[in-house]
Amino acid sequence: MPATLDFYFFIGSTYTWLSVSRAAKLASDHDVELRWCPFSARTLMREQNNVPFAGKPVKLRYMWRDLERRAERLGVPFAGIPPYPIDADEITNRVATLAALEGWCPEATQAIYRTWFLEHRDPGQEDTLRTVLAALGRDPDDCLRQADTPRVREAYASRTAMARELGIFGSPTFACGTEIFWGDDRLEDALDWHGERPVSE
Amino acid sequence: MPATLDFYFFIGSTYTWLSVSRAAKLASDHDVELRWCPFSARTLMREQNNVPFAGKPVKLRYMWRDLERRAERLGVPFAGIPPYPIDADEITNRVATLAALEGWCPEATQAIYRTWFLEHRDPGQEDTLRTVLAALGRDPDDCLRQADTPRVREAYASRTAMARELGIFGSPTFACGTEIFWGDDRLEDALDWHGERPVSE
Repeated sequence: MPATLDFYFFIGSTYTWLSVSRAAKLASDHDVELRWCPFSARTLMREQNNVPFAGKPVKLRYMWRDLERRAERLGVPFAGIPPYPIDADEITNRVATLAALEGWCPEATQAIYRTWFLEHRDPGQEDTLRTVLAALGRDPDDCLRQADTPRVREAYASRTAMARELGIFGSPTFACGTEIFWGDDRLEDALDWHGERPVSE
Repeated sequence: MPATLDFYFFIGSTYTWLSVSRAAKLASDHDVELRWCPFSARTLMREQNNVPFAGKPVKLRYMWRDLERRAERLGVPFAGIPPYPIDADEITNRVATLAALEGWCPEATQAIYRTWFLEHRDPGQEDTLRTVLAALGRDPDDCLRQADTPRVREAYASRTAMARELGIFGSPTFACGTEIFWGDDRLEDALDWHGERPVSE
């Protein structure tokens, strides 16, 4: 049985673009199963008064430059600064939650992020999200309807509660059991953690 | 002429312990001259409303755990959580500024950080700082008197102004000319930046 790494992410987080682009292959190379866990980082950040960029123009400017450089270093495409912030209603995150329940979360999240980062469209806009879903071979009406059901909303809230319990405060966070690693730049550390302390033992 | 990397640091920053412990050797391995630049990160963070940990217990708890893991990974000693915050009057930073003016900044900063991280004493306490200075073969009375002079205070303020101009918002930050890299985890990126885009050309 391969080790499992929980990939807690929030569509709307900028650095998460790097992980969405590279974590699957890297995990596979490490023989680690990556479990995609959409959660509401926004909820936890509000609760914790954690405001990384709003009202902080110097830090925000640095973040985009750093993200651009990291993308280049890691071989991830970067097409300039996309719209930000996005997805006010967290609809893409609820669609990703639906996809996680049904087994198509990685491709959904990757397609949503590509739309945001490479086409510079807010995937939280309903018409944009519909286009993404149709291109994935999904029924947009059905997906949007389901993303609004108690089942999906509760699954999203439940994953957020698990993140809260783990001490998560931002996206992306990688969890090996109760050991958490925050940031795309800790992905390698998280994968190595498995090698050092196998969770299946 | 070797390339130069400006190491902007503030004694009081936790992750800076990692850089203080490893940057000199790493820079030397890359044939890069490391210029030690104490500045008041606290002043810039106040100006920018950048409060990483105060009032954020979840993020603070993570930071210590992450720092412990990173220290282990990087071969830097870690002896448990030291006092925090420290150096309310920024006296250690002014002593480091004096040391930078006189050419003994690396050993002063390393000794101050060891006292903080390995002996768990606040180096901003005058008696502790005196012990550190005496162990370095310096005259504590003379150092403390000089650290309070306009010359040193102005050098510290001037370096802080340069940091502000570069868009720096925290410690440690590595600057290759106007290209800045924030965080100990960007030290390798900063050193590689030289290789890719030599500043002496």
